[in-house]
Amino acid sequence: MRERILVVGGNAAGMTAAGRAKRLQPDLDITILEASSFISYSICGVPYWVSGLVGSHQDLIAYTPQRLAQERGIQARCRTRVEAILPGRRRLACRSMDSDETFQLDYDRLVLSTGYRPVRPRIEGCELGNVFTVSRLEDGRRLRECLQRRPAAAAVVGGGYIGLMMAAALAETGVRVTLFEKGRHVFSAVDDEIAERIEGALTGRGIAVKLRCPVRALHGTDGMVRSVACSEGTVAADLVLIDVGVLPRTELAQEAGIALGISGAISVDRRGQTDLPGIYAAGNCAETVHLVTNEPVFSTLGTSAARQGRVVGENLAGLRSEYPGTLETALEKVFDLSVGRTGLTLRQALLKGYAAKSVTVDARDRAAYFPDSGPVRVTLVYESGAGRLLGAQIAGGADAAKRIDSAALAIQGRLTVRDLAQADFGYAPPFATLWDPLQIAAHIALR
Amino acid sequence: MRERILVVGGNAAGMTAAGRAKRLQPDLDITILEASSFISYSICGVPYWVSGLVGSHQDLIAYTPQRLAQERGIQARCRTRVEAILPGRRRLACRSMDSDETFQLDYDRLVLSTGYRPVRPRIEGCELGNVFTVSRLEDGRRLRECLQRRPAAAAVVGGGYIGLMMAAALAETGVRVTLFEKGRHVFSAVDDEIAERIEGALTGRGIAVKLRCPVRALHGTDGMVRSVACSEGTVAADLVLIDVGVLPRTELAQEAGIALGISGAISVDRRGQTDLPGIYAAGNCAETVHLVTNEPVFSTLGTSAARQGRVVGENLAGLRSEYPGTLETALEKVFDLSVGRTGLTLRQALLKGYAAKSVTVDARDRAAYFPDSGPVRVTLVYESGAGRLLGAQIAGGADAAKRIDSAALAIQGRLTVRDLAQADFGYAPPFATLWDPLQIAAHIALR
Repeated sequence: MRERILVVGGNAAGMTAAGRAKRLQPDLDITILEASSFISYSICGVPYWVSGLVGSHQDLIAYTPQRLAQERGIQARCRTRVEAILPGRRRLACRSMDSDETFQLDYDRLVLSTGYRPVRPRIEGCELGNVFTVSRLEDGRRLRECLQRRPAAAAVVGGGYIGLMMAAALAETGVRVTLFEKGRHVFSAVDDEIAERIEGALTGRGIAVKLRCPVRALHGTDGMVRSVACSEGTVAADLVLIDVGVLPRTELAQEAGIALGISGAISVDRRGQTDLPGIYAAGNCAETVHLVTNEPVFSTLGTSAARQGRVVGENLAGLRSEYPGTLETALEKVFDLSVGRTGLTLRQALLKGYAAKSVTVDARDRAAYFPDSGPVRVTLVYESGAGRLLGAQIAGGADAAKRIDSAALAIQGRLTVRDLAQADFGYAPPFATLWDPLQIAAHIALR
Repeated sequence: MRERILVVGGNAAGMTAAGRAKRLQPDLDITILEASSFISYSICGVPYWVSGLVGSHQDLIAYTPQRLAQERGIQARCRTRVEAILPGRRRLACRSMDSDETFQLDYDRLVLSTGYRPVRPRIEGCELGNVFTVSRLEDGRRLRECLQRRPAAAAVVGGGYIGLMMAAALAETGVRVTLFEKGRHVFSAVDDEIAERIEGALTGRGIAVKLRCPVRALHGTDGMVRSVACSEGTVAADLVLIDVGVLPRTELAQEAGIALGISGAISVDRRGQTDLPGIYAAGNCAETVHLVTNEPVFSTLGTSAARQGRVVGENLAGLRSEYPGTLETALEKVFDLSVGRTGLTLRQALLKGYAAKSVTVDARDRAAYFPDSGPVRVTLVYESGAGRLLGAQIAGGADAAKRIDSAALAIQGRLTVRDLAQADFGYAPPFATLWDPLQIAAHIALR
């Protein structure tokens, strides 16, 4: 009999685990169980669907359940909620969300890839209509429907990955946008100098950015949000997008007695195995390790999810595969500004006890005499003694953010700022400067 | 008395050495001697001046001698040829090219940064009018003057860095261009799969590319070139650009008894010192070390030159600075195609005795649903046993070539294809794909 594998959650990690396992071991009988109506979509593409740059939600979907079955031999059941794991019997208790019927499915091995859930802040009014979070494709559809009713003013609560992208997407549809950030700067994944560039990009396109401005309540009439109350007063808003953080979806695992890690996500070894036999976890519900600190972290990135999923898929297929961990390398687009970050910020590094320093330089992304030459800002974070690179951030135009990969590989290779200062970066006037901005930053760090 | 430093050659290496030394040690009395009319210009920018994208040669010049003296306190004498080094007396014999007067200059320390010279092939007709090489700013001016006389057809002999860029630049001015390459493919700095993309970019814009087609002679009338004779017959051309290789300019060093290395360039230690006391060499006239093979190489890249110059400048100023060597990382633009390369090609690796393999993948540079998503091709070269990365090449649109820096840093960090497969590359739909093309290539290499 074919070994039966059930996968709970059909996005980055679950899809990748299923696809990789099936490709390596075509005998496996794999079924994905997904609570929403869609599998295998790019949640990162939702802001561009909302803004209209991407025409249809179908563009964001790599596989429908039909195509997945036909082309990959993997079954997927959407709108199917897994209500309990019965680990002793290797069985799942499920409920069809359409018929409300319950049923049970047996497994030989199980993969939990339940992802994260957005946190709803503990303030009045979050239950009002036209108050959104974005963590599923359906959220994009509801936002688009709301936008068709031509809201006059939108409020974005929180300036994280999703808040920033959605603020830009909403502004591009012509809505007036106010961004509320309780911290000193938006986007705590970068240091202040880079955050300031982001804030400049937002305000430069007409977004009101309110820093150190926690939201106290949402007010509405007839069940629909009308305004946002903050420390500075009240701001009208008939559309509110909330991005105050996310938490790993771990209820199912916890109720089955699977151990969580100190980050709050499901504890797994490097092969993705939980502490219960035959049960793996991958993606944002599963804990991973930070490659600089070696400490457990809860990563919210799709890249981490896909990489963890790939490792679990290989282990399901009988290979011995390990996921080394994450640098939290990430890219963000805010209008024409592209931002990349990897490793630790200076703030994080100091908090973790490193004798860390940082240096920030403003340079150019290509030869100054080239017509589309533009500014690029680089921040390097490094240990002040040995000079080991701990993190880096880049903000610039066009594809500047993707240059962060160089820094990620330098950190992975345990290079120092001295190594970076001597690195052999590529140069041609249309694409680069003779001295790369990362290298200029390394030179200054060495002074 | 202030220490007197003379620098022979006022471009990438010489300018960087002088500038770095002066910044660190403002007491130094530094004079640059330059045979041409210009110092401190971007020779890599000449194709874009020829094509008209860059408006004036002045855009390509970072410092005039006047500004260099005023702003940096460094003297520069253009149109001054150094005819001999008298190392026993620490003296140079010079000649003014304007007055033809000779004079002597004393030095305490000397930097040779004489660069390279283009090779003229041993065929008939190279002395005809409208036959060009490009290694100096003046070459760009002469080319522009020739283009104003509206040539009907241009021939480019040799498909190296300069040949490719000039072929594209000439085509963009409306001239019909034929490129003659004696090898199987253009641009031997990359492997065949990448060279094919370059050839596609050339022919796609109307350039006739003749491979395995050595040029036998140039024919002319009234002293001006009219046609190119090759193995396939005769092709009309009233403008010929030759790029069949370059050689280090070492005559001055050789005549002074300074040792050359096996690459033919001036032998220096990692600090840039020649075998004669007080004499340094930097830039393309000086040998460097390949970071993968650890063998001496003659690099023709401006980046190597600038980095060697920086190291020499630091040593002149009393620091102890060493140049580790080069990966020959380079970028090339051919119309809308950007190409990056680093480390060894498969051909080079096999020639050097590595048990090398390569893998080539076609992927995309950003999410497929993004309007400007385009193809990108990646070739990885690696050792088949340990999987150590030896080289990489990228060809794609926009800024794809600059991604080669990641591979350069991976090679510098001595990472393997397994490390690359697990690397934490950044992702966002407008800039990248969930799995980076370099990573996809690493995955395939691991199969």
